[in-house]
Amino acid sequence: MYRVDLNSDLGESFGRYTIGSDDKIIPLITSANVACGYHASDPVVMDKTLAMAREAGIRVGAHPGYPDLMGFGRRNLNVSPEEAKAYTLYQLGALNAFCRAHQLKMQHVKPHGAFYNMAAKDYGLSKAICQAVKEFDDRLIVLALSGGELARAAKDMGLRTALEVFADRAYEEDGSLVNRRKEGAMVTDEKVAIARVVRMIKEKKVTAITGKDIPIQADSVCVHGDGAKALAFVEKIRRTLTEEGIEICSLDEIV
Amino acid sequence: MYRVDLNSDLGESFGRYTIGSDDKIIPLITSANVACGYHASDPVVMDKTLAMAREAGIRVGAHPGYPDLMGFGRRNLNVSPEEAKAYTLYQLGALNAFCRAHQLKMQHVKPHGAFYNMAAKDYGLSKAICQAVKEFDDRLIVLALSGGELARAAKDMGLRTALEVFADRAYEEDGSLVNRRKEGAMVTDEKVAIARVVRMIKEKKVTAITGKDIPIQADSVCVHGDGAKALAFVEKIRRTLTEEGIEICSLDEIV
Amino acid sequence: MYRVDLNSDLGESFGRYTIGSDDKIIPLITSANVACGYHASDPVVMDKTLAMAREAGIRVGAHPGYPDLMGFGRRNLNVSPEEAKAYTLYQLGALNAFCRAHQLKMQHVKPHGAFYNMAAKDYGLSKAICQAVKEFDDRLIVLALSGGELARAAKDMGLRTALEVFADRAYEEDGSLVNRRKEGAMVTDEKVAIARVVRMIKEKKVTAITGKDIPIQADSVCVHGDGAKALAFVEKIRRTLTEEGIEICSLDEIV
Amino acid sequence: MYRVDLNSDLGESFGRYTIGSDDKIIPLITSANVACGYHASDPVVMDKTLAMAREAGIRVGAHPGYPDLMGFGRRNLNVSPEEAKAYTLYQLGALNAFCRAHQLKMQHVKPHGAFYNMAAKDYGLSKAICQAVKEFDDRLIVLALSGGELARAAKDMGLRTALEVFADRAYEEDGSLVNRRKEGAMVTDEKVAIARVVRMIKEKKVTAITGKDIPIQADSVCVHGDGAKALAFVEKIRRTLTEEGIEICSLDEIV
Repeated sequence: MYRVDLNSDLGESFGRYTIGSDDKIIPLITSANVACGYHASDPVVMDKTLAMAREAGIRVGAHPGYPDLMGFGRRNLNVSPEEAKAYTLYQLGALNAFCRAHQLKMQHVKPHGAFYNMAAKDYGLSKAICQAVKEFDDRLIVLALSGGELARAAKDMGLRTALEVFADRAYEEDGSLVNRRKEGAMVTDEKVAIARVVRMIKEKKVTAITGKDIPIQADSVCVHGDGAKALAFVEKIRRTLTEEGIEICSLDEIV
Repeated sequence: MYRVDLNSDLGESFGRYTIGSDDKIIPLITSANVACGYHASDPVVMDKTLAMAREAGIRVGAHPGYPDLMGFGRRNLNVSPEEAKAYTLYQLGALNAFCRAHQLKMQHVKPHGAFYNMAAKDYGLSKAICQAVKEFDDRLIVLALSGGELARAAKDMGLRTALEVFADRAYEEDGSLVNRRKEGAMVTDEKVAIARVVRMIKEKKVTAITGKDIPIQADSVCVHGDGAKALAFVEKIRRTLTEEGIEICSLDEIV
Repeated sequence: MYRVDLNSDLGESFGRYTIGSDDKIIPLITSANVACGYHASDPVVMDKTLAMAREAGIRVGAHPGYPDLMGFGRRNLNVSPEEAKAYTLYQLGALNAFCRAHQLKMQHVKPHGAFYNMAAKDYGLSKAICQAVKEFDDRLIVLALSGGELARAAKDMGLRTALEVFADRAYEEDGSLVNRRKEGAMVTDEKVAIARVVRMIKEKKVTAITGKDIPIQADSVCVHGDGAKALAFVEKIRRTLTEEGIEICSLDEIV
Repeated sequence: MYRVDLNSDLGESFGRYTIGSDDKIIPLITSANVACGYHASDPVVMDKTLAMAREAGIRVGAHPGYPDLMGFGRRNLNVSPEEAKAYTLYQLGALNAFCRAHQLKMQHVKPHGAFYNMAAKDYGLSKAICQAVKEFDDRLIVLALSGGELARAAKDMGLRTALEVFADRAYEEDGSLVNRRKEGAMVTDEKVAIARVVRMIKEKKVTAITGKDIPIQADSVCVHGDGAKALAFVEKIRRTLTEEGIEICSLDEIV
């Protein structure tokens, strides 16, 4: 029996600024990565986001980012391990307050944007993040890039770890994502993309950009809800997964 | 047997900016109000502050403020009840993450600066703050101005409430603090100030600026650690309280 | 010969967050109030906004606000006159850098949101703003609510002053805007609203909410570009003004 | 006749947070790099800093930094050239408003912290900064690390350029500063440090960490005012320079 989780970033609006289509993506996913007020979101948005998540019955996780609202947390910032740990603790706690208020249990943690990308390549940074998770709640699941350093650090520290894959991204032979600036970085053909996802789940394999098959683990597929096209794509993924006999369920049922 | 708590604001440094003499005031107090990153502090400072508090064995509480670092949370900001509640939840949660990491139990909540002053006069705002406390952890003590609206709202909502008094401030007949701009607002004679504190604790009375005695409750005395003079004053208060047979102990032993 | 300016807020996006329909409102107005990075906007947005304004040939002014991005500058913040003056100078200068880069001349200044509303009722605050304008560039036009304190302070200090009116808002007898929470605060009938504007320009009169006619001066009409309905309303205003023989031109041709 | 400028960072306080000893370093320097509200400072601090600079008769320049108050602008942040240019324009303009208010002429620009360090090694980033300077005021002097990419970009773009040296830092053979983490990075012997400065000015040479003499140009020496020891060191530098017949004067008299 195959199972997979679908995760998406949520609650990234801020003040009077609205971004994303949270109400439309929520029915299509099983786990939401909720922004915590550093790279996006504010307390009122967090409150509303958790109310929606609870209403829909999906699982929520923290989506901590760099303190860079102007750059939406997408710019590399050279923080120290001490800062990375403290920033993660702060954001975990902040989101957890809203989990308590809405009687939700936090399921996972997935760093955002540049924090995620830098951690995937930096074991020291990843350890700092995992140290925060461990001290905060050692039952939290760390949702990390399959094959990256965060996954390795989380496992080394005995944390529950879930690995995620991307439908629309090409992989290098070492399992890392092909840099977006490189040709062929994006898998643009939707059918190909979905077939790749199915194979990643069933065969635990994907064809790297070099043509070579590499091993991969797909506990969760990262999907996006920005725009009608993205939403339609998620619906197609869901349909195919179901047709393929792959059950879509939340991370805590998988890990 | 008389008992009283001594509370002080702590952990208000930010980034490379240092403020206060936390190491010097900590040995003199029983409860610390710890800044939560809105009006002051950052995650690294919060981490260090809780490490110090744990080491010293004092109790900690959250000191949520307005999102106004530039004004140190001292400027009135016209937030809605919804915003006030969400900002309080956010900051309670953020601090609590560091409590968990340092295996400390959060004892109380005391709003900061303009948030404190506006709440003391606004029942609706106070209710919003108390709603956050209730949803977050209904065993938390709300530390509020004796005679103010926050104390009233906390009691109305069934929350544990502690009342604080000020040694160096004059009171109006209705129990509110005399506005700092008014003549006689500050009690400048240290002996008089300390004698007033002793009377507030033992007789539950204080002489208002009009000359009339009014009832007051002193579960805690708010003290300050900024500068050598302030620290010496706190030492004098401690000495006198002990001589008067008043035990200095933390809020959770009193309420 | 009657003349009037049409002004609108512009450039209020921030980072990855987009707000407003700047490209659609620009062809309909003669003066843009450009956000300066405090209540909204960032340097990249300011750069793009001025590029668009220059391309369209409209005049630009600074739209300084409170340092409250989370509240979009719409919440009253109790700043001191010293702070108000310094915040205004800072934002005037910041916007002016982009005026220089795009070889535009700054035409006017109009405070934003709560800064505007508080200034309209507080002569001291208005004086602080005007002091900043005077020290920065004493040829700048202060765009202020007809009948408000900012207009009074600007005139008292010898600054060029333009008065603005609102098509969709009711007026009190003293010329101030009826509070939005009060019944009848909004003029919802578009035809009535436009007829009122024409009368304000031609007869310098408007009927207050009490039914009494009061004097008013309309150098500029404040319009909005958020949404298709708002844009259609501005087009109707433009059409009617033209039909009524009222020339639509920028502030610096009027004052 | 030898001449040199002494420059120091100034006005880095923020809100209620005070940092540095501006009043003590001002009498010892000829050019101040004034923080512009991104990595440090706020409008009230900028106003006070320029008032002090004007009173003392020293020259002022903009000290733009990354939008990272929490990290004091000392952490590498991966901004795009477009962002770097816009951030520089914004901060140049903001500071210039206070120059106007205090009737001071801005003399120079020197990026701060990580912005400075990254620019020194990145020609593209340096070009973006210089583009902002050029569009804002092409008479401004770019104050840059001797031998770095910012100096090269400024010269290539025809901007007035001044080169600065550090008394207490060792140099690599290519003229770059030895990384602080490397042994021997700091010149700890004050006499040696001062002798090196004199030689850099008179002979235009310095001995690199490898022992080899390399060419260097010292239009300005960067000094620090944080602490009694740092201030005493600056006084010693001044005394020796004067004894050596080297005139201490501002950048605009040198470039």
